[in-house]
Amino acid sequence: DFLRALDEVHPAFGVSEEELQQVIQNGIIHYDPVVDELLKTGILFVDQVRTSTRTPLVSILLHGPPGSGKTALGASIAQASEYPFIKLISPDNMVGFSESQKVTAITKVFTDSYKSPLSVVVVDNIERLIDWTPMGARFSNAVLQTLLVLFNRRPPKGRRLLIIATSSLRPILTDLGLSETFDSELRVPPISSLRALEYVVQEVELFPSEQQRRRAVRMLEDAGFGGRDDLTPKLQIGIKKLLGIVEMARQEPEAVAERLTSSLMDLR
Amino acid sequence: DFLRALDEVHPAFGVSEEELQQVIQNGIIHYDPVVDELLKTGILFVDQVRTSTRTPLVSILLHGPPGSGKTALGASIAQASEYPFIKLISPDNMVGFSESQKVTAITKVFTDSYKSPLSVVVVDNIERLIDWTPMGARFSNAVLQTLLVLFNRRPPKGRRLLIIATSSLRPILTDLGLSETFDSELRVPPISSLRALEYVVQEVELFPSEQQRRRAVRMLEDAGFGGRDDLTPKLQIGIKKLLGIVEMARQEPEAVAERLTSSLMDLR
Amino acid sequence: DFLRALDEVHPAFGVSEEELQQVIQNGIIHYDPVVDELLKTGILFVDQVRTSTRTPLVSILLHGPPGSGKTALGASIAQASEYPFIKLISPDNMVGFSESQKVTAITKVFTDSYKSPLSVVVVDNIERLIDWTPMGARFSNAVLQTLLVLFNRRPPKGRRLLIIATSSLRPILTDLGLSETFDSELRVPPISSLRALEYVVQEVELFPSEQQRRRAVRMLEDAGFGGRDDLTPKLQIGIKKLLGIVEMARQEPEAVAERLTSSLMDLR
Amino acid sequence: DFLRALDEVHPAFGVSEEELQQVIQNGIIHYDPVVDELLKTGILFVDQVRTSTRTPLVSILLHGPPGSGKTALGASIAQASEYPFIKLISPDNMVGFSESQKVTAITKVFTDSYKSPLSVVVVDNIERLIDWTPMGARFSNAVLQTLLVLFNRRPPKGRRLLIIATSSLRPILTDLGLSETFDSELRVPPISSLRALEYVVQEVELFPSEQQRRRAVRMLEDAGFGGRDDLTPKLQIGIKKLLGIVEMARQEPEAVAERLTSSLMDLR
Amino acid sequence: DFLRALDEVHPAFGVSEEELQQVIQNGIIHYDPVVDELLKTGILFVDQVRTSTRTPLVSILLHGPPGSGKTALGASIAQASEYPFIKLISPDNMVGFSESQKVTAITKVFTDSYKSPLSVVVVDNIERLIDWTPMGARFSNAVLQTLLVLFNRRPPKGRRLLIIATSSLRPILTDLGLSETFDSELRVPPISSLRALEYVVQEVELFPSEQQRRRAVRMLEDAGFGGRDDLTPKLQIGIKKLLGIVEMARQEPEAVAERLTSSLMDLR
Amino acid sequence: DFLRALDEVHPAFGVSEEELQQVIQNGIIHYDPVVDELLKTGILFVDQVRTSTRTPLVSILLHGPPGSGKTALGASIAQASEYPFIKLISPDNMVGFSESQKVTAITKVFTDSYKSPLSVVVVDNIERLIDWTPMGARFSNAVLQTLLVLFNRRPPKGRRLLIIATSSLRPILTDLGLSETFDSELRVPPISSLRALEYVVQEVELFPSEQQRRRAVRMLEDAGFGGRDDLTPKLQIGIKKLLGIVEMARQEPEAVAERLTSSLMDLR
Ligand SMILES: Nc1ncnc2c1ncn2[C@@H]1O[C@H](COP(=O)(O)OP(=O)(O)OP(=O)(O)O)[C@@H](O)[C@H]1O
Ligand SMILES: Nc1ncnc2c1ncn2[C@@H]1O[C@H](COP(=O)(O)OP(=O)(O)OP(=O)(O)O)[C@@H](O)[C@H]1O
Ligand SMILES: Nc1ncnc2c1ncn2[C@@H]1O[C@H](COP(=O)(O)OP(=O)(O)OP(=O)(O)O)[C@@H](O)[C@H]1O
Ligand SMILES: Nc1ncnc2c1ncn2[C@@H]1O[C@H](COP(=O)(O)OP(=O)(O)OP(=O)(O)O)[C@@H](O)[C@H]1O
Ligand SMILES: Nc1ncnc2c1ncn2[C@@H]1O[C@H](COP(=O)(O)OP(=O)(O)OP(=O)(O)O)[C@@H](O)[C@H]1O
Ligand SMILES: Nc1ncnc2c1ncn2[C@@H]1O[C@H](COP(=O)(O)OP(=O)(O)OP(=O)(O)O)[C@@H](O)[C@H]1O
Ligand SMILES: [Mg+2]
Ligand SMILES: [Mg+2]
Ligand SMILES: [Mg+2]
Ligand SMILES: [Mg+2]
Ligand SMILES: [Mg+2]
Ligand SMILES: [Mg+2]
Repeated sequence: DFLRALDEVHPAFGVSEEELQQVIQNGIIHYDPVVDELLKTGILFVDQVRTSTRTPLVSILLHGPPGSGKTALGASIAQASEYPFIKLISPDNMVGFSESQKVTAITKVFTDSYKSPLSVVVVDNIERLIDWTPMGARFSNAVLQTLLVLFNRRPPKGRRLLIIATSSLRPILTDLGLSETFDSELRVPPISSLRALEYVVQEVELFPSEQQRRRAVRMLEDAGFGGRDDLTPKLQIGIKKLLGIVEMARQEPEAVAERLTSSLMDLR
Repeated sequence: DFLRALDEVHPAFGVSEEELQQVIQNGIIHYDPVVDELLKTGILFVDQVRTSTRTPLVSILLHGPPGSGKTALGASIAQASEYPFIKLISPDNMVGFSESQKVTAITKVFTDSYKSPLSVVVVDNIERLIDWTPMGARFSNAVLQTLLVLFNRRPPKGRRLLIIATSSLRPILTDLGLSETFDSELRVPPISSLRALEYVVQEVELFPSEQQRRRAVRMLEDAGFGGRDDLTPKLQIGIKKLLGIVEMARQEPEAVAERLTSSLMDLR
Repeated sequence: DFLRALDEVHPAFGVSEEELQQVIQNGIIHYDPVVDELLKTGILFVDQVRTSTRTPLVSILLHGPPGSGKTALGASIAQASEYPFIKLISPDNMVGFSESQKVTAITKVFTDSYKSPLSVVVVDNIERLIDWTPMGARFSNAVLQTLLVLFNRRPPKGRRLLIIATSSLRPILTDLGLSETFDSELRVPPISSLRALEYVVQEVELFPSEQQRRRAVRMLEDAGFGGRDDLTPKLQIGIKKLLGIVEMARQEPEAVAERLTSSLMDLR
Repeated sequence: DFLRALDEVHPAFGVSEEELQQVIQNGIIHYDPVVDELLKTGILFVDQVRTSTRTPLVSILLHGPPGSGKTALGASIAQASEYPFIKLISPDNMVGFSESQKVTAITKVFTDSYKSPLSVVVVDNIERLIDWTPMGARFSNAVLQTLLVLFNRRPPKGRRLLIIATSSLRPILTDLGLSETFDSELRVPPISSLRALEYVVQEVELFPSEQQRRRAVRMLEDAGFGGRDDLTPKLQIGIKKLLGIVEMARQEPEAVAERLTSSLMDLR
Repeated sequence: DFLRALDEVHPAFGVSEEELQQVIQNGIIHYDPVVDELLKTGILFVDQVRTSTRTPLVSILLHGPPGSGKTALGASIAQASEYPFIKLISPDNMVGFSESQKVTAITKVFTDSYKSPLSVVVVDNIERLIDWTPMGARFSNAVLQTLLVLFNRRPPKGRRLLIIATSSLRPILTDLGLSETFDSELRVPPISSLRALEYVVQEVELFPSEQQRRRAVRMLEDAGFGGRDDLTPKLQIGIKKLLGIVEMARQEPEAVAERLTSSLMDLR
Repeated sequence: DFLRALDEVHPAFGVSEEELQQVIQNGIIHYDPVVDELLKTGILFVDQVRTSTRTPLVSILLHGPPGSGKTALGASIAQASEYPFIKLISPDNMVGFSESQKVTAITKVFTDSYKSPLSVVVVDNIERLIDWTPMGARFSNAVLQTLLVLFNRRPPKGRRLLIIATSSLRPILTDLGLSETFDSELRVPPISSLRALEYVVQEVELFPSEQQRRRAVRMLEDAGFGGRDDLTPKLQIGIKKLLGIVEMARQEPEAVAERLTSSLMDLR
């Protein structure tokens, strides 16, 4: 299976591999068909950039609620491209940067990318890059304008670039005029079915015994999370937060099911 | 045909030819009579500046929806002028510039232009040059004021200048007091007829066989894009975006027609 | 006729003659009695400053719609004064200046003027000097405050100064507290009668033959611009824009009348 | 008569006499009893500061419409004090100053004043010192805060200070919290009676003959400016503006009365 | 009587005695029981800081209308403490300071205070320290934040600090979040009874003879200021302003009573 | 009892012990079961970070009314962790810091923490760190953005970090987008039962005799503070303020009960 193989792919050189690994620390769990679809669509864009001469610049946006796995998926697609140039632009590496330092750092990655015939740039967490705060609608217009230009600027002749951006605040991006700069937008949904949830806890081996697992499922069903194929989303949780809750539950081995259920119910 | 010849015209010297070429990478496709009319009107202004002594400064605005081809058309007219001085002022070359650096760079181009008896300056994407963002109506007043003065400032005696500006946000320009500085405004419309669309895909040889082409047309008509002379615009797409969609469709040779149709329907 | 002679007057020394000439490049056409009246009133103030010892500072404002001829008239009055010191403060010479550079440059002209027993300072296009933009009502308060003080500051003993300011935005000047600083305000109206329009096109010899001229007049009357003495203003065009339209019309000798009429109708 | 003598008083040393003279260039015309009253009240405060040990700091505000004579009256009172230290703080001497330069210059005058046992500081045109503009209610808070502190700060032991401030915008001063810092506020009214107006024109010898004077008075009465003792103010003009109009009228000796009347009617 | 003795107390060393004296120039007049109460309460806090080990930081706010005597009372309490460290933080000493200079100066006083086992810091006129202006609600957030932290920051082990702050704008302090930082708030009221007023004028020996005093009282009563024990406050005047009015009245020995009464009536 | 032992725990090295001690100067009084619960839950998070490999970053928020004991509790949990790296980020140590100095200081603590395998960082008083003021909703966006990134940034491989933040303004944190960055939020309530209040005064030995204690309780009950198990909160006071009131009451040994009761009633 190609998609599962993705997680192990390691690009050869000129690539910030460690950084990419860091954001996929807990791997990619295929808890829902949408995970495969997202990866597959990403690979299609990777292929278009590689093969078509008329579109040397393609940009996509991964958006969805906090912790839904946008960064991990973006990094996975980038890794899978096996392009010679893969870079991650992340607010994590720009703490304390002034506006102009941010602009310089971001611009440098794009300028560097133009040296490689094929490049992927992951622009992670746009709202944080532009210092967005809802109160007073403050943000760095300097960084915003830089992104607006860079997302539209064609690489020089003979160079091709794929841009993968992530954000939890798609409506804001639209208000800022950023949305229309993307060739395609892909939504990364939260986990909302019991089946997907079960898949995750099994993958991370939360329950020491099959008996305990069944008891937990019963508790969740009783708590109203619905049956296996329940479609009405009563549950809305990002994979990142779910993995955190799982770990907290694991602290009390004797009461794993209770802790898991109560934590999930607290979220509603 | 003079207009078609335009695309091949190469001015002799003192001209940033490469830059101009870069923005007309995919050429000019004459998919609609309006394309010829726009180029023809542009040439009329080129001639007026060359011949009349009483109007040493003429400025025009090319405006229209994103990706409608404003930059490519502006650059084509500039190239066709064969003036000794042709320069492109573009946000692409000013990423990370401070307000005052932008002002200096823009002013320099105008000052340089005064050294040539005949000059064209293309001022591309005004909203980006002034760092416009709709949220909070933020923009660089310093750059705006610079444009307001430069667009009205007569070149010194014996010098003549044609200014070609482009923008996707004409209403904003009006609010900013910029609109009234232009001698003429030309609207660059999006593609809105099936006939024009067909012309484009044929030019870029999207379909390997005539049979496939016909099938695609039928699908588009069935999808409600109307007959050949349909005038009610059900379709609104810039030539730039259309060329992108074509390239994406080309990725799956067996399903070109389906992909093209579905991408176009997604836009509505 | 003294007023017509004005246009040819050249002051003797210490005067930026070239600059003044530049802004009256197309001369003064006496298309309407108001033109003479404005020049005459201007000369009256010139005389008052020269003769009265009790009013060493007099300031007037020429205001009117864009392109109505304010700058050319202001420069003409200044030239006609034949004062030993005549200077033009214009945004054209301050492109890219910082707020404080503008303040310094403006102040210097006034300080210099105090060295001459008689001086005229033309302060052109106030809204541009203060970086006015209607959106958000932004402007340079530093430059505004400088003007507010300089327009009221008496020259030192034995020195006399006439200030001629121009603006297209009189209501804004009032809101900014600038209006009340002027001793007198003179309105420069746009051309609004067919008779004045005819006068202009004849002066610039637009029509090669008397026959063509008559045909054009008929077309304009048919288009509803009214008879010779029509007073209801259906037409509102500044002399500057009219001269531009005339030049464009001249491009197609065979269709001069049609082009002139259609351009004028576009304005309504 | 002491009050009339005021105008000729020249303080002995350490005083910026020339500056004071400059602002009383046209002297003080005693056109109305209120002029004497204002000067007399001012002298009372001068005396209080000189004699009382318990109030080493007294501050008064002269306020009234533009051109009503505030600066000239303030300077006259200061001159009449014959204190060893008399200084004028005026926006005229601070053109182009930055906020902090203004603060420094203002503060220096106060600090200097503390060196003299008796001092008067005239703080002229407060709204201009604080760069006030009604649009957007902009002003220099740094200068405002400086004035707020300096107007309240007691001079060191053994020093006494009289502050005379002037402003046309008393309501704004109240909104800014400045009004309550004054020990007393004196209103300088505009000229509003025909009798006062007659007094002024006679003083400046506008009319060559008694016959002409009578004709002018009749014209003004006919124009509705009322009889000699008319109390309903139909006329509202500052002495400064009136002196300007008089000078303009003087330009046409044959039509002095007509010009004067029409200029005054324009004001209504 | 201890409280009356306060006024004469002089702390021994490390204390800015002159500064304190300057703000109590006119002494403390005990015109009302509230004056004693305020001083007594202040001394209680002085004692608590001296004796209790659990509350090394105590802060109080003296608030009341302008000129009610807040600064003089605060300084008196500080003087009475006889602590080895007593400092006054006053806007008078920070004219022309930048925001950061103010922050530094204020912080230094607190840091210095930590070197003494017992300290009092008088923070005078908070609204002026933070450059407060009601128009636009402008203020220095940098200074405000500094006060917010310093008013809450415990001195190091073994050090104790009493903070006495003054302000005329208590409601603003609340809006700024400053009110809740004080352990106690004490209101300094204006003079509002005839009895208190009489006490003051007698103390400063306004009337040369008992006869004149009685006549003045009668005039005030006739003017409606009520009898000796009138409780309904018809009069609201700060002690500072009252002392100013008294001094003005003293200027005309023959009309002291009239002047005093009319000045007081002007205030209503 | 482990929880009580907490207060005496002293971590071994690399820890700013003195600083922690300073903020728990008055110890932890166990006046209510919620105090133990809060400490216990804190320890659970300490354990999770120590043992689980999948959640190297855990962050909790202690929020509650001013003076409820947030800082002391946060510091106690940090001390109890016995991690090799424990640091307090407090506004007390950043008085007068510029925005960028704050950002640098905060970032340094986090970067330092990454050098230890196990770290706790206490981020005290978030509203003060970001210079929050309700008037005009001003705050330092630079510091806010720094916290938003640091609270989400995973430590490098092999490092684990517990973040304990405190704030009195939880709703503001939500508006600023900070709330959702915490894994868990713990509310620190004020004292609201007579029983808890009694516990506190007994612990600090306010009453010299049992008799006095009983009298005080009766007074409080009479004042309406309800019986021992009264659940309707009529009383709302932080432990910090209560300890202050107790100390004030102690000043008058003969009237301890009266002072305590009246101070508490003033708060309502
Ligand atoms: N199917 C999956 N998709 C994405 N992430 C997954 C998946 N399965 C497991 N993970 C793990 O879940 C975590 C997702 O966190 P990630 O930071 O990518 O989310 P996010 O949406 O970017 O969060 P934020 O909104 O905070 O930026 C990662 O640790 C990743 O290894
Ligand atoms: N008739 C045409 N007119 C304009 N461009 C055309 C035409 N035919 C083909 N093209 C190609 O289409 C593209 C138009 O893109 P262009 O950047 O000029 O659009 P734009 O309106 O300036 O976009 P934006 O709104 O993003 O600035 C160019 O690559 C150009 O070569
Ligand atoms: N009667 C006239 N009055 C003024 N200008 C005239 C007249 N006749 C001809 N002209 C020419 O018309 C032009 C008027 O332009 P001018 O720049 O003075 O207008 P303006 O009102 O200052 O424009 P703007 O509003 O852009 O500042 C000049 O070139 C001048 O030579
Ligand atoms: N009675 C008078 N009072 C004041 N000024 C007088 C009087 N008589 C004559 N003058 C002259 O009138 C002029 C008054 O101008 P002044 O600048 O003092 O007015 P102002 O109220 O300060 O004006 P502005 O509002 O512009 O500051 C001066 O030239 C002064 O010499
Ligand atoms: N009982 C009193 N209380 C306070 N001040 C008194 C008293 N009796 C006399 N004074 C004098 O009255 C003056 C009070 O002025 P002070 O500056 O203290 O008032 P304030 O309220 O601080 O004024 P502001 O609101 O302007 O800051 C001082 O000169 C002081 O010596
Ligand atoms: N159970 C308790 N919980 C917390 N603090 C306690 C407790 N018992 C006694 N204290 C003492 O009470 C004081 C609580 O003050 P602390 O500064 O921690 O409150 P805070 O809520 O952080 O205040 P602020 O809102 O001002 O930041 C400390 O001196 C602490 O030693
Ligand atoms: Mg992410
Ligand atoms: Mg473009
Ligand atoms: Mg002009
Ligand atoms: Mg004045
Ligand atoms: Mg005070
Ligand atoms: Mg705290």
